[in-house]
Amino acid sequence: MFDFTFHPVRFTLLLLNLQVCEVYVTTFVERLLNACETNRSLLCVGLDPDPARMPIGDVVAFNSAIVNATSDLVCAYKPNVAFYEARGSEGIAELERTIAHIRDVAPSVMVLVDGKRGDIGSTNAAYAKALFETWGADAATINGYAGGADLGPFLAYEGKAVFVWCRSSNAGAAELQDLPVQSDGATMPFYQALARRAVEWGPNGSVGLVVGATYPKELAEVRAIAPDAPILLPGVGAQEGSLRASVEAGVDRAGRNLLVSSSRGVLYVSSDPVRYADAARNAAERLRDSINAVLEDGGHSWS
Amino acid sequence: MFDFTFHPVRFTLLLLNLQVCEVYVTTFVERLLNACETNRSLLCVGLDPDPARMPIGDVVAFNSAIVNATSDLVCAYKPNVAFYEARGSEGIAELERTIAHIRDVAPSVMVLVDGKRGDIGSTNAAYAKALFETWGADAATINGYAGGADLGPFLAYEGKAVFVWCRSSNAGAAELQDLPVQSDGATMPFYQALARRAVEWGPNGSVGLVVGATYPKELAEVRAIAPDAPILLPGVGAQEGSLRASVEAGVDRAGRNLLVSSSRGVLYVSSDPVRYADAARNAAERLRDSINAVLEDGGHSWS
Repeated sequence: MFDFTFHPVRFTLLLLNLQVCEVYVTTFVERLLNACETNRSLLCVGLDPDPARMPIGDVVAFNSAIVNATSDLVCAYKPNVAFYEARGSEGIAELERTIAHIRDVAPSVMVLVDGKRGDIGSTNAAYAKALFETWGADAATINGYAGGADLGPFLAYEGKAVFVWCRSSNAGAAELQDLPVQSDGATMPFYQALARRAVEWGPNGSVGLVVGATYPKELAEVRAIAPDAPILLPGVGAQEGSLRASVEAGVDRAGRNLLVSSSRGVLYVSSDPVRYADAARNAAERLRDSINAVLEDGGHSWS
Repeated sequence: MFDFTFHPVRFTLLLLNLQVCEVYVTTFVERLLNACETNRSLLCVGLDPDPARMPIGDVVAFNSAIVNATSDLVCAYKPNVAFYEARGSEGIAELERTIAHIRDVAPSVMVLVDGKRGDIGSTNAAYAKALFETWGADAATINGYAGGADLGPFLAYEGKAVFVWCRSSNAGAAELQDLPVQSDGATMPFYQALARRAVEWGPNGSVGLVVGATYPKELAEVRAIAPDAPILLPGVGAQEGSLRASVEAGVDRAGRNLLVSSSRGVLYVSSDPVRYADAARNAAERLRDSINAVLEDGGHSWS
């Protein structure tokens, strides 16, 4: 039945194969690009279950219906941990069941856990374990205030990525984020000094940046500083004008490496407990198509 | 048996009493001071259950034994959410059972949940709900990078406090936290510009600051900027020298308003599964007494 004779060519191929497996880990950026190409989409849907807005009461059923309705339209899902944590351990169990459902239904879609976690290194080791082992995220938003050396525990997970909170979309973002800083022989807003450091913190796109969609000018500055980093763009609203400006400013030279994220604009377009998932699909499709129109105009159609 | 006749003076007193109850909420700083006076202690014990270091396997049993052994020696307990989150929803359930045990055993001791949470306002509303309603914390560490306006959801909980991550204890803290910033007509490290804003963000000590114990000079700068804010001082080690410098630099004019926090230095002094709680008590008692010796030398003995 089995042939146990030693075969030198087969044995060498086996060794080569093992070696390749050990040395080469697919990077997050490669897996993200694959997810984008598969669905021809830069759209990321934020899964922020808000009891005050959900058309049905069950969080996992709601999230699952949204995922089922949109899994061929997105490159990533972005659950925001705060909306689960608000209900304590039960809410976190709902987050875990939501991620399991995404993996079942859409195995090639990225899961980006949005928690803005961050502390000194010994605590970051525990956060990294939660994000990348316990929840199995592909990527996570973090807060890098402790500095690059203390991000080691996050970066030790090969093939994963962290997105450093750089410039947010709220009206009061400038208070701290735009403070003029002396850095690299020039004066620049704090968020740019942060971006300049963040691009040095990790190899191969393992450190990305979070820049709110409401500030296309600031986004263009960050893209110039970080030409190869993945960028997460939260806060995309209904206005196609700002979407166009944000996508143009945010993509890399190849028209990729940008996660255009919408939460409320997809989840809560209908309060009808029967039709909300169809409505979410329609909203997601419109957003994906609007983004793709901008990519086409820039000469970056999907292959 | 009962006198139901209308008595105008009593009725007026009742109304006044109701009105007083509605208007006056005890602030966090007042409750903290009460907890400190009760146990004559500025010591805060960090509850960071690390499976690699715990002498027994059960997190809640371990935490409960530590709390039982130290509840008359501390003003606060500080569970670090990362160490619970690492085990997902089960870990968060252990956090919830730990807090319930503290409330049972030591109702006057403050519970400060250390999670460095923070995002834009709509997400902060969910984090604040987790911290102050679901977990019932008295105070929480936060990340204020979104700016003061977006901290509204935290500050809406009267009688609670948030501690803004200002200057951390790690070796690489300076990379971002010490970047020279132009603020208020002068050049100063970023963490000082942050502290100057943070003291304006909330009334009555509802916004405190986190400053690592390894940098007494930086701590003194923050105390000068924020003379009345509560300060959380993590990272207290075994060296009494740096403890003395930190306590001297960190207390307010009355020798109070400082939470001197130790985690590993109390939790993991003994790996004996029978005697670890006694060893923790001894370590906590030595720390409390060392802090009190500094207070006495400064003329701030307990009443």
